[in-house]
Amino acid sequence: MFVREAWYVACTADALHEAPLGRTICDERIALFRDGTGAAVAIEDFCPHRGAPLSLGRVRDGRLVCGYHGLEMSGEGRPAHMPGQRVDRFPCVRRFPVIERYGFVWVWPGEASAADPAALPAFPFLEDPAWAYGGGLYHVRADYRLMIDNLMDLTHETYVHASSIGQPEIDETPCETRLEGGTVVTERRIAGIKAPPFWRAAMQANGLDPDADVDRWQICRFTPPSHVMIEVGVALAGRGGIDAPADAKVRAVVVDFITPETGSSHWYHWGMARSFRVGDAALTESIREGQGRIFGEDLEMLECQQRNLESNPGRRLLTLNIDAGGAHARRMIERLVRREPAAA
Amino acid sequence: MFVREAWYVACTADALHEAPLGRTICDERIALFRDGTGAAVAIEDFCPHRGAPLSLGRVRDGRLVCGYHGLEMSGEGRPAHMPGQRVDRFPCVRRFPVIERYGFVWVWPGEASAADPAALPAFPFLEDPAWAYGGGLYHVRADYRLMIDNLMDLTHETYVHASSIGQPEIDETPCETRLEGGTVVTERRIAGIKAPPFWRAAMQANGLDPDADVDRWQICRFTPPSHVMIEVGVALAGRGGIDAPADAKVRAVVVDFITPETGSSHWYHWGMARSFRVGDAALTESIREGQGRIFGEDLEMLECQQRNLESNPGRRLLTLNIDAGGAHARRMIERLVRREPAAA
Amino acid sequence: MFVREAWYVACTADALHEAPLGRTICDERIALFRDGTGAAVAIEDFCPHRGAPLSLGRVRDGRLVCGYHGLEMSGEGRPAHMPGQRVDRFPCVRRFPVIERYGFVWVWPGEASAADPAALPAFPFLEDPAWAYGGGLYHVRADYRLMIDNLMDLTHETYVHASSIGQPEIDETPCETRLEGGTVVTERRIAGIKAPPFWRAAMQANGLDPDADVDRWQICRFTPPSHVMIEVGVALAGRGGIDAPADAKVRAVVVDFITPETGSSHWYHWGMARSFRVGDAALTESIREGQGRIFGEDLEMLECQQRNLESNPGRRLLTLNIDAGGAHARRMIERLVRREPAAA
Repeated sequence: MFVREAWYVACTADALHEAPLGRTICDERIALFRDGTGAAVAIEDFCPHRGAPLSLGRVRDGRLVCGYHGLEMSGEGRPAHMPGQRVDRFPCVRRFPVIERYGFVWVWPGEASAADPAALPAFPFLEDPAWAYGGGLYHVRADYRLMIDNLMDLTHETYVHASSIGQPEIDETPCETRLEGGTVVTERRIAGIKAPPFWRAAMQANGLDPDADVDRWQICRFTPPSHVMIEVGVALAGRGGIDAPADAKVRAVVVDFITPETGSSHWYHWGMARSFRVGDAALTESIREGQGRIFGEDLEMLECQQRNLESNPGRRLLTLNIDAGGAHARRMIERLVRREPAAA
Repeated sequence: MFVREAWYVACTADALHEAPLGRTICDERIALFRDGTGAAVAIEDFCPHRGAPLSLGRVRDGRLVCGYHGLEMSGEGRPAHMPGQRVDRFPCVRRFPVIERYGFVWVWPGEASAADPAALPAFPFLEDPAWAYGGGLYHVRADYRLMIDNLMDLTHETYVHASSIGQPEIDETPCETRLEGGTVVTERRIAGIKAPPFWRAAMQANGLDPDADVDRWQICRFTPPSHVMIEVGVALAGRGGIDAPADAKVRAVVVDFITPETGSSHWYHWGMARSFRVGDAALTESIREGQGRIFGEDLEMLECQQRNLESNPGRRLLTLNIDAGGAHARRMIERLVRREPAAA
Repeated sequence: MFVREAWYVACTADALHEAPLGRTICDERIALFRDGTGAAVAIEDFCPHRGAPLSLGRVRDGRLVCGYHGLEMSGEGRPAHMPGQRVDRFPCVRRFPVIERYGFVWVWPGEASAADPAALPAFPFLEDPAWAYGGGLYHVRADYRLMIDNLMDLTHETYVHASSIGQPEIDETPCETRLEGGTVVTERRIAGIKAPPFWRAAMQANGLDPDADVDRWQICRFTPPSHVMIEVGVALAGRGGIDAPADAKVRAVVVDFITPETGSSHWYHWGMARSFRVGDAALTESIREGQGRIFGEDLEMLECQQRNLESNPGRRLLTLNIDAGGAHARRMIERLVRREPAAA
């Protein structure tokens, strides 16, 4: 079950150079490429001539040339040229609306006419030079909603990520969940603790004593269809937590763009934006590497959970207070899907 | 088709240490671990919180802690603790009765209330210090009954194991099959032959002349649901065969515990118990290594046979005199399955 | 969809030595071996005893001995011997008619009684000492008709094989398609061009100036059920093309035997027969190696096309003039299938 009438991250802007890129989003096979103006475009990954995947072809003069017999497709999905053929009566393929912003290429897998650029959520810290960003991509063989559950309930850090960001105080501290203007927010604040290894390193990198007592926060925000931004950080104890002065805290946003591929798999663009030592590329890389390792730990769990749920189809799960974020997010998705044209 | 109300080998006792072990038996996903007393226990491999496999977790103070969000399960399948939660109303998961004996952990995948410790077959030679044992484990993508057929008809040794235990005299000598107190026995005795390579080595190891004429025996015994014990050996010709004095024979029991995983795959614990040079660990290892190689030769055949049968679903097979052991075993299994509560 | 009442290449004659060979053709699992006279024979790959694949066995005295329990099958599919058994009432397995000719073993997967040796197409250049031949085998996970389409429309060379035999002039030159005595012929003649890399090397190997202007031809001939022979070559410009004197041209036949395995996979025996420097084994090997690399480029495209078509089942494709060869071949196949006994 996915919301089709929505913007999803298809790839990073950097991943789309000269070569086209094939990617399945919400069960739609899509070929992405750059047209003659350099703009990212997306069309069905199906050559109307003989059904070859267009993404195996190459881009020439802003058109996608099928790698089998050379039919050239425009960024609007219109056959534009083929040696020795008149292509004006050839059938078109679907075009998918695209926006390139925040360093990502966003695709709208639903009705093109319904695509609304204003529906793209705002991620100001991804455009702000006062922030640095690094991230990566995983393919996960699990329903994308299991990833949302995962990110909206960070008690799992204690167990899955015991050696980096997990600490017992997390699941000893209750979290609060609320709806806030079309988003779901789950928040946990932990006062007067020692920072776990990942944050100790961040404190050190930012000139703070890693052994100092800190206040820690985790504010997870789900925005439909499937983005989770998590405000995270630690501040010296008693200095105001997330509102502490810049020199008394380390603060970051965990960025999670979760793009359904099929009903049981998804693409997961993860990353971290931070507001300290933003010019330090080595630090960016080291955080990225550490985060990649930590997030990799979730993959096996999610893929095993997926198989376990498939083997136990009728079975009810528990929805505890810690699961409230994921549960609200799922209900929000269900409501949106029911309102879609395809549901009528 | 499997008997559910029965004891199956889940793993060796040695395989179950600090870490839990996930294993599917008769289509049931089971997590095995050791409780606070060190006793092996088995519960459903499904966390009642969010469906994660419990076997990915860890054991703490005799409880199985889910590796996702930390729900602790007791060996009875009862939620016992979770940070920040009251677990007394959490649903339980199934518990599977367990017996640890003969160096193996035995699980009863059927109704727990029906589990009868007295139904565990006796394997005295596995507890007797006058015998030594070595063995291993294979996963086989074939119906477990194909393995029973294989072991209850040793004429295949001539073809599959030509270079170790096979010899032409095997399939030239008729076998006899009989029912004996709820078991199926297939027996072959071959008089006045030369020993094949495996037994020549065993004779030499036991101080006998490997070139001497011998009498050879193979007595296969199937006990439901799916264990096959095979008395095997050679004695100097004319000294009484299996009843010859200890210094005139080499004698062993091939141990086969065949545990259905799904309808088309099984776990195969194989081994050999012997009553000569029992303190010689190097000999144990060398026999184990040789047996592992020999039994590995069966795997390809069984997996190919399985695929061939799946491609020819309606097809009748022959049941010859040499197949009588397997045929009786299958009928015995069918009768037991028909009598099970699940069949009613 | 395949024609069953027809001869298909099962393997090269060289591939069938002492060991049997298992191969699925038109969904029939077949075991091939050589009988006591050295003649290739083919029977069902299913032992009537316990269903083991006979092709895992060995050949002894012209009989196929099952590798599991030793049942010996004759080349007619009749049980001939089994130690300790009377086999005269054992069921037979199917026999498949076989012809060995042109360096290949041909099998008739349909009704044995309908097999007509005269229906084997003639390939005189494969028996003529004035020609040399080299080739190879690929397994392709795609409907065999996608391979026929591929070979009956060589405009794809421009795109798929740009660095070897492709050149822009191919798809700028129209092709002509005609029916000719139960075969489909697609022909393209290109006058006054430079030869592409593969043919430059062939010209050089044959003592011609590789920089000379040439006339190039491609004459693709489909013969049911699924063989495509392609006359290819270049001649010095204006010397008569394919009819030019031998010292003014390089000429070859691309040999394509396409054998359906299942509805979505096939075996592809490809090769090249040439009429120049036929004694030069190193040249044969170098052409074979180059052709293997070129044809390997088609495999990914065909397998991706197959998956794309499976994901878009109802979708219509275009049939352009360049596709006429493949379209005629498909219609010819459909007509033959409708006339088969199995269709009635």
